[in-house]
Amino acid sequence: MTMTLGEIAVRFGLELIGDPGLAVDGVAALAGAGPGKLTFCTGAKYRRELAATRASAVVLARELAADCPVAALVSPNPYAAYARIALALHPLPAVTGGRAPGAVVAPTAQVPPSAWVGPNAVIGAGAVIGERCSIGPNCVVGEGVVLGDDSRLLAGVTLHAGVVAGRRCMFKAGAVVGSDGFGFAPDTDGYVKVPHLGGVRLGDDVEIGANTTVDRGTIDDAVIADGVKLDNQVQVGHNCRIGAHTVVAGCVGISGSSTIGSRCMIGGAVGIAGHLEIGDGVVVTGYTLVTHSLPGPGVYSSGWPAIEAARWRRAVARLHRLDARGRGAKGRQGDE
Amino acid sequence: MTMTLGEIAVRFGLELIGDPGLAVDGVAALAGAGPGKLTFCTGAKYRRELAATRASAVVLARELAADCPVAALVSPNPYAAYARIALALHPLPAVTGGRAPGAVVAPTAQVPPSAWVGPNAVIGAGAVIGERCSIGPNCVVGEGVVLGDDSRLLAGVTLHAGVVAGRRCMFKAGAVVGSDGFGFAPDTDGYVKVPHLGGVRLGDDVEIGANTTVDRGTIDDAVIADGVKLDNQVQVGHNCRIGAHTVVAGCVGISGSSTIGSRCMIGGAVGIAGHLEIGDGVVVTGYTLVTHSLPGPGVYSSGWPAIEAARWRRAVARLHRLDARGRGAKGRQGDE
Amino acid sequence: MTMTLGEIAVRFGLELIGDPGLAVDGVAALAGAGPGKLTFCTGAKYRRELAATRASAVVLARELAADCPVAALVSPNPYAAYARIALALHPLPAVTGGRAPGAVVAPTAQVPPSAWVGPNAVIGAGAVIGERCSIGPNCVVGEGVVLGDDSRLLAGVTLHAGVVAGRRCMFKAGAVVGSDGFGFAPDTDGYVKVPHLGGVRLGDDVEIGANTTVDRGTIDDAVIADGVKLDNQVQVGHNCRIGAHTVVAGCVGISGSSTIGSRCMIGGAVGIAGHLEIGDGVVVTGYTLVTHSLPGPGVYSSGWPAIEAARWRRAVARLHRLDARGRGAKGRQGDE
Repeated sequence: MTMTLGEIAVRFGLELIGDPGLAVDGVAALAGAGPGKLTFCTGAKYRRELAATRASAVVLARELAADCPVAALVSPNPYAAYARIALALHPLPAVTGGRAPGAVVAPTAQVPPSAWVGPNAVIGAGAVIGERCSIGPNCVVGEGVVLGDDSRLLAGVTLHAGVVAGRRCMFKAGAVVGSDGFGFAPDTDGYVKVPHLGGVRLGDDVEIGANTTVDRGTIDDAVIADGVKLDNQVQVGHNCRIGAHTVVAGCVGISGSSTIGSRCMIGGAVGIAGHLEIGDGVVVTGYTLVTHSLPGPGVYSSGWPAIEAARWRRAVARLHRLDARGRGAKGRQGDE
Repeated sequence: MTMTLGEIAVRFGLELIGDPGLAVDGVAALAGAGPGKLTFCTGAKYRRELAATRASAVVLARELAADCPVAALVSPNPYAAYARIALALHPLPAVTGGRAPGAVVAPTAQVPPSAWVGPNAVIGAGAVIGERCSIGPNCVVGEGVVLGDDSRLLAGVTLHAGVVAGRRCMFKAGAVVGSDGFGFAPDTDGYVKVPHLGGVRLGDDVEIGANTTVDRGTIDDAVIADGVKLDNQVQVGHNCRIGAHTVVAGCVGISGSSTIGSRCMIGGAVGIAGHLEIGDGVVVTGYTLVTHSLPGPGVYSSGWPAIEAARWRRAVARLHRLDARGRGAKGRQGDE
Repeated sequence: MTMTLGEIAVRFGLELIGDPGLAVDGVAALAGAGPGKLTFCTGAKYRRELAATRASAVVLARELAADCPVAALVSPNPYAAYARIALALHPLPAVTGGRAPGAVVAPTAQVPPSAWVGPNAVIGAGAVIGERCSIGPNCVVGEGVVLGDDSRLLAGVTLHAGVVAGRRCMFKAGAVVGSDGFGFAPDTDGYVKVPHLGGVRLGDDVEIGANTTVDRGTIDDAVIADGVKLDNQVQVGHNCRIGAHTVVAGCVGISGSSTIGSRCMIGGAVGIAGHLEIGDGVVVTGYTLVTHSLPGPGVYSSGWPAIEAARWRRAVARLHRLDARGRGAKGRQGDE
């Protein structure tokens, strides 16, 4: 799509320093952009690239405007402004209602004419699909699932019975929502499976990453609140509750029955033990193990940065040597 | 389903303190249960919720019976007893034999009339499906796969050729069993793929979690023994052997050619290196790296609990400073 | 397939010590092999098994030839030689062109007669499939995807629009390539999605593991170079570039916009932060967190090996006690 800088400034409430009649038809990186493209600059460390840019316009903060050799669109939050403009220039393909070959839709499912059901997708009995939803190829929507308007399942997604999702949700390829959790009661001759009778409730604007898994509740519903974004390969155990606008990076594992507050940021590969309470606004840096409840807001860590392997082996040995000394001096130090 | 407490006591061998004619029709949480529901109480720390419960009956241990304001079902293992009763009250939906639209079943596959083949599921040549199996939507069963009676594939599951599974196995959505493993021989111009000629043998009552992957053997079969439960997002490398009734929590990675004993408990996100032997009854706590074989039984750990990020950075710096001091004093201490 | 040792020696350039007319029809493990089988021995630690082998022939290094009780095929790289011979004896099943029932191929997709489209596979508009490609059951090939000759998608694979792959690539079950990455601009009322306009370019001989996810570029393409092998459950964030012949073990997470050099070896469950540069020939041992760019070549670590849980708890406490001492003595030591 093509827009003039004037249209962009008006629509997104930005100050324009430059020609309002100049048109852009797409976005590009600061360094690689050419004429006709819009780009962004998020900080003074990119000042040199900014000075050399060949883009037609740059979205940036006021303090960089003087360094901009081309038209500038000034915003207090240039990255968010850029994202909104980029979505306008490169909109998601509109959903065309209909059913592709191979789609299997149960007679009792409610699928409005504005929704698309892709090739070989399966929609179970009693499911209720919102307006303009897109159920991509090979997706499986279980019995009675409810999907709000404008939600999209990309490909190979499974939503089990008991999932109720809000509007504008995005489920990426291979995501699985509503599995039974890992609930087994140990018994003399093995384990007894604990039935999972709760579902999963998702708010509006939730994004579930590719091959991410979200388990259901054992009795009550698991809850993923409005605006939550889960990256790829995330595992959310049964009975979890994740608060609004919390973002969870890739490969995170959240054990069962834990509650995460709102507006948290959980870094990649973090592990969160079960039955914990993480407060609002908590940041957990990547590769951290959370074993206790954490009050919010605050920043928490336990990841060891990589160093040369030989140095690392010495560091490991030294911690254990400390321990051994402590044990020898145990009676005196009384520290165990 | 509705059962009287008398029926439950007899069927599960529990002592009933209360009216045997009282009926329950489902389970609920101790705090949230109302009349007509059965619940459970697993410990004295829930004594207050127990005193306030409005459930019709509670499964509990003898020492809590006196505190129970309603009918009590007494068991030495209340959680397992609860799980069994809950399964009886909320049974898995029975499998109705037949083939859904879009199912593609090879002519030489053996699928009994009691088994269900879901929409767009694919069953390869020579596969042998047991009685009352359920092959869910979009699942793929490879050539010659053998599935024992009453096994279920939920949705989007892939079982490759060479998989032989026992009875009552459960494969959750997106699980992949029988992939070639990560076997490559380094050579001057890259890597040569090592053929994977073994399969995967699974015992009875195995559960494979959503989006979990289990690789096959290079020459001999990989083995997942009776009663093993793998949670979601687990990766089991080629040639592994996992002993009976071992449970593996989410996001665990087990490298190739390792053997895990029986009745082990592997915590979430644990990493186990290749070619190791883990004994029977080993417990590995969450977020631990296992680099050596571990005799069993025993409990092993190496996860660092999260603390405030600023404190954590100091702790990291201090370990490395220790190391630096040690290096300075190396000749004298002779510890390297 | 059956081959004589003479044929093998000639075809793979190996020295044969034994009867060139002897035939083998398959491979087996050193300890388990019987007559008619070929096996390999990679080191002196297997000397005892070598002495006892009942195989017809063993691929080994010169220094072990004298210990071999049967025919020997001598190679400077016995494992790679074995892998090549094993592939010749057990070739991948040839691809038979055609379309299975339930396959949905867009009219504008280019699929040559030599390629196979499996049951319920979906190929989008404008996709270009190479000669002898195999698109397995329930795979989804997005609009305009380009696949080089002899590439294979096993089952349930999703390649999104914008993926361009080379020759002889292998995509294992459940792999997802070309997802939008985890790009969100924080704003006052939540997050704004950043459009992902780049694709993913994969070289020749790339292998993508089961349930592995590779995100696309935000503006430019993400790149997976020739010969890269990604194991199962790997996550590669948006805008990453991975150099030729780098191997990445299972459960690794690579955050967005990081560049990995060529011929690196990334161990299992490693986490790599975003926007880093990892040099050529870097080895990262398993369960390591990489937070800074790493020059190559070199070996880097940060994983703590498991020990008994009680000892581990003491070691953790001691590091923190060190920290507390340091804080008490802060003014004097000036180390913070």
